[in-house]
Amino acid sequence: MLKERIEEVTRANEDFYSAFESLDIMQMDGVWAHQEYVTCIHPGWSIRVGWPLVRDSWVVIFNNVFSMGFSLTELQVQVAGDDLAWVICTENITSRHGDNKQNSRVVATNLFERINEGWKIIHHHGSPLME
Amino acid sequence: MLKERIEEVTRANEDFYSAFESLDIMQMDGVWAHQEYVTCIHPGWSIRVGWPLVRDSWVVIFNNVFSMGFSLTELQVQVAGDDLAWVICTENITSRHGDNKQNSRVVATNLFERINEGWKIIHHHGSPLME
Repeated sequence: MLKERIEEVTRANEDFYSAFESLDIMQMDGVWAHQEYVTCIHPGWSIRVGWPLVRDSWVVIFNNVFSMGFSLTELQVQVAGDDLAWVICTENITSRHGDNKQNSRVVATNLFERINEGWKIIHHHGSPLME
Repeated sequence: MLKERIEEVTRANEDFYSAFESLDIMQMDGVWAHQEYVTCIHPGWSIRVGWPLVRDSWVVIFNNVFSMGFSLTELQVQVAGDDLAWVICTENITSRHGDNKQNSRVVATNLFERINEGWKIIHHHGSPLME
């Protein structure tokens, strides 16, 4: 059961980054829990609390990026009981803003909750890696 | 029961920041779970996995700071089931390195697990707030 849960959460985490790459708010709508207790911290930003403010932050990001690609390393997936899980990973990002292409690395903490048989993201914390 | 758990986790989070302020590795030993799955991300640092590496990171920090004071704002405490909880908060920090006093703000995600009736921290992710 634990192995199965870890596979499910690994897929849910991949779905989150696919939604991020899609730059499509409808896909982001599909991977998040639409709850008042969800939270999100983007690199350098302050804490956003509740689905409406979290959703708005994705709208802003998607409107300011031209393309985004993620490759994940140092992935740690942990499941607690049957309904809560967290993923720690390094996001290796290739992004384009206009003609400007850049590579960057972000470390992330992602929390997932199992709701109606499916895993939804309830917290994302991304922060810049300085090397 | 939920109210009681939230109070316990709020206290565990305060104990973590008291240990941080103490700059005493023995106090930090007391608030962390000494497990191979604990993780820690300091502002700008890469991911540390496992208690020995997490502990070493605190030794390095405590050896490089003269004093540290925390005031927490935007505190969100969530408990899932009976054994897992997470805290999101803004750390308003006053620190001294030699004669240099500085104020800074860090956003944090802290995960706690209930082990033998007590809450221990199992993940800390701190990241700089840029304003």
